[in-house]
Amino acid sequence: MKLTIHRGTFIQELQTVQRAIAAKTTINILTGVKIDLSHQGLTLTGSNAEISIESFLSVENEQAQMKIEEVGSIVLQARFFSEIIRRLPEDEFTLEVIEQNQVEITSGKANFTVNGLDADNYPHLPVIDTQNQIQIPVHVLNKLISETVFSVSQHESRPILTGVHFVLSNQTLLAVATDSHRLSQRKIPLENTNDAFDIVIPGKSLTELSRSLTDEEEVITIRIMDNQVLFETKTMKFYSRLLEGAYPDTNRLIPTNFNTVIEFEGKEFLSAIDRASLLSHEGRNNIVRLHIASDGVILYGNSPEIGKVEESLNYNHVSGEPLDISFNPDYMKAALRAFGDTTIKIQFISAIRPFILEPSEGQGEFVQLITPVRTN
Amino acid sequence: MKLTIHRGTFIQELQTVQRAIAAKTTINILTGVKIDLSHQGLTLTGSNAEISIESFLSVENEQAQMKIEEVGSIVLQARFFSEIIRRLPEDEFTLEVIEQNQVEITSGKANFTVNGLDADNYPHLPVIDTQNQIQIPVHVLNKLISETVFSVSQHESRPILTGVHFVLSNQTLLAVATDSHRLSQRKIPLENTNDAFDIVIPGKSLTELSRSLTDEEEVITIRIMDNQVLFETKTMKFYSRLLEGAYPDTNRLIPTNFNTVIEFEGKEFLSAIDRASLLSHEGRNNIVRLHIASDGVILYGNSPEIGKVEESLNYNHVSGEPLDISFNPDYMKAALRAFGDTTIKIQFISAIRPFILEPSEGQGEFVQLITPVRTN
Repeated sequence: MKLTIHRGTFIQELQTVQRAIAAKTTINILTGVKIDLSHQGLTLTGSNAEISIESFLSVENEQAQMKIEEVGSIVLQARFFSEIIRRLPEDEFTLEVIEQNQVEITSGKANFTVNGLDADNYPHLPVIDTQNQIQIPVHVLNKLISETVFSVSQHESRPILTGVHFVLSNQTLLAVATDSHRLSQRKIPLENTNDAFDIVIPGKSLTELSRSLTDEEEVITIRIMDNQVLFETKTMKFYSRLLEGAYPDTNRLIPTNFNTVIEFEGKEFLSAIDRASLLSHEGRNNIVRLHIASDGVILYGNSPEIGKVEESLNYNHVSGEPLDISFNPDYMKAALRAFGDTTIKIQFISAIRPFILEPSEGQGEFVQLITPVRTN
Repeated sequence: MKLTIHRGTFIQELQTVQRAIAAKTTINILTGVKIDLSHQGLTLTGSNAEISIESFLSVENEQAQMKIEEVGSIVLQARFFSEIIRRLPEDEFTLEVIEQNQVEITSGKANFTVNGLDADNYPHLPVIDTQNQIQIPVHVLNKLISETVFSVSQHESRPILTGVHFVLSNQTLLAVATDSHRLSQRKIPLENTNDAFDIVIPGKSLTELSRSLTDEEEVITIRIMDNQVLFETKTMKFYSRLLEGAYPDTNRLIPTNFNTVIEFEGKEFLSAIDRASLLSHEGRNNIVRLHIASDGVILYGNSPEIGKVEESLNYNHVSGEPLDISFNPDYMKAALRAFGDTTIKIQFISAIRPFILEPSEGQGEFVQLITPVRTN
């Protein structure tokens, strides 16, 4: 293998696959990046137990200025290799496998010789059939992920809850995440498919995927197999394992009849919750209290050691019964951040029943649910 | 005490004194910021065992928009107080001591009540006499610190070496730091003084001082007492304790006769050292080797596990005997960074004797010394 290539372009490719490479792992070869050079171009691969990323740079990419002298492949320790490439003196560099998996990296007068590993020993990526597949714009997928993934469980006690549940049926894609204290649910219409699937994708995979997808205008293809999902763009293949087991039926959790309804400007309410949480974080229970009455709405936070805060809130509209309800402000903050700068509606049954948040203009396509904390 | 003030201006003041406030300390009141309001303005104080910072905001400062309704003082837990102020909804806020050291913080509809401490219990700052004092522009002092402080020892085994030695005599200020493996020395002329002193200031204090001094054009006054030094600007007093004990005589350490001299562009040499250190960091000894001969200069780095690097270096000029010398690349990197983008001269005696770096145009006013590593 011998290749001369533009350094900046190569670094971008390497960064993409490095998301999948763990610094430490029991499988030594997986700390490496697989470099595969054909006459069509350069393929880089990184992988760990959860995800694998394959990135392709075509020989026709003008920015890359590739000069392919000999095709071949090698695996190089990813962290070092990346740090070496970043520090090379010139705008381009040459990579050559010399003998016994040794690689020479040359740029200007700097000459590195590093030990590589045989690419034949690198694990094969799964082969994905193309029966179940959908296409969706990157910006839609990224939004779907950011609106739900924060609600996955961080605990391995119920592994299935560490993933986001995706269900495709009746031309609608449903995504749900819950850690059993709160729940996020988003539905989007997908008119150009008659497929159906029901899978659970690890939350961490989705977060990494979202970071890898920078071109918001591109369309991504999602292909599904028994235990793997592949997200594919023109230049990248992103594989994730799926979580096994039955996801709980969450549909029955979302209430439909309410006794108190209030409408806030999301951003303003978020600022107030943020202030109140400063003190609740120091308390034993980390709760804030919302008091809703016809003559005013007040938010309380307190910590016996530090002090207390009380803020009379602006709201657009309130109706129904008066209510005093306590909840974890961090759940509320995460939910409000997912809505962004919009008007939101919060609907309550009572102080001890879960309540839901929706955009005021919403038709049930995006709902957040939070379980309150009983204080007596 | 009751004060209304512009929030942004207050946050800046608070940031300055917070540099001196430790999050955890055995003296509880020192986790607080002392707030002292007089008819002249607002004084904030922060302190730890090493340094104390006092910042003054005049009532005449227009940006601060101060409305002083009642003078007085209080101590508030610094971290919380700062987080509360940052999150307040409006551009200004009101601070009022209500009763039993309780403080009410009001901005818009948000109302915090926090527990404070009696300001009478806050330690008194040292009284500094004005016998020994010099004045020097901030940009000169900041440069002096950045050129020397990185060479102080990080180990408490010889506490005196954790400080920078400052000696004023014959209208010259000398600053020296050494960790016994390397040494940095800078001299500056001070023509408007006939004073003399010999003190050792903790390196950490100097680093914090440097971060606090943002107005490079200002002139700072340095006042010295037996065990304290005060750096004073118009709006800030920065106190540091001095280190006790005799600083070693470093003058005799700097050699004056050499057998090999080489001249590099500092920035280019730094890049090469940085590349070579990538591999040396993985080796057992963390050393790189410099080979100087009349027909070329080569830098070597290697790690048995990862690989090796070899780079033929550009240089402006070389003279004297050929040499093979090994050294810690991190010491070299720190020294080269202190010189910045300039031409530097490195002078050697032999592979086992300390060598020195100077700007090519230098007259001995700025010298860095590095002890090589014996490899056989």
